[in-house]
Amino acid sequence: MKIVHYEQVECAPVQTEGAVGCRMRCLIGEADAAPSFTMRQFEVAPGGHTPKHTHGFEHEVFVLEGTGVVLEGNVERPVKAGTVVFVAPNEPHQFRNTGATPLKFLCLIPHPLRGMVGPCIAACACE
Amino acid sequence: MKIVHYEQVECAPVQTEGAVGCRMRCLIGEADAAPSFTMRQFEVAPGGHTPKHTHGFEHEVFVLEGTGVVLEGNVERPVKAGTVVFVAPNEPHQFRNTGATPLKFLCLIPHPLRGMVGPCIAACACE
Repeated sequence: MKIVHYEQVECAPVQTEGAVGCRMRCLIGEADAAPSFTMRQFEVAPGGHTPKHTHGFEHEVFVLEGTGVVLEGNVERPVKAGTVVFVAPNEPHQFRNTGATPLKFLCLIPHPLRGMVGPCIAACACE
Repeated sequence: MKIVHYEQVECAPVQTEGAVGCRMRCLIGEADAAPSFTMRQFEVAPGGHTPKHTHGFEHEVFVLEGTGVVLEGNVERPVKAGTVVFVAPNEPHQFRNTGATPLKFLCLIPHPLRGMVGPCIAACACE
């Protein structure tokens, strides 16, 4: 069992092209022998945003603090503490901080190989 | 894309044997066509607890509000808002509310078939 407060986990800048003012913590992942999916926590500074992009795997998001919008394609949808967002595979999306304090959220993803090429194919690749 | 505030989602009593004062919301799951894992939110009343049990799949937990303990086997480990808990497959565990307010946490699990029999075997079973 791993038990840790999220603030004790190293928070590293997100270097992905298109990311502005984003930092990320990996809270639970493959390094912990998590078998299926990874829990990350993001902090987006006021005025900052995640990349506007799309990919073949899903996001399961829970907003912890702050206010912002998630772009559903080009439509801005407001988010705040307690908002849940499911981004399905291949949906264009971006998270933007429109408030004056950090926008903090959890964003969980399936393990990369499985998520990128589909659950059945990728899972079998580890055999 | 699904966007909802968690409090808008129905909160149902947990009927599992050994659960006391527990309610659960399914925030993102197979009904949303989530491919890999499910986000649930639990609320445990003061004095309440989840079942003390073990199973073949993992939990990825983030505590939102309240105070309590998670039993790692028979050892009580404190949790509070911001605590992250990874319960590996087959680890005995229980969450108990030791405070005066609801203990609220997210608890994510892999989709049942995959989680119960191991990621490779179960994923291939859907082909």
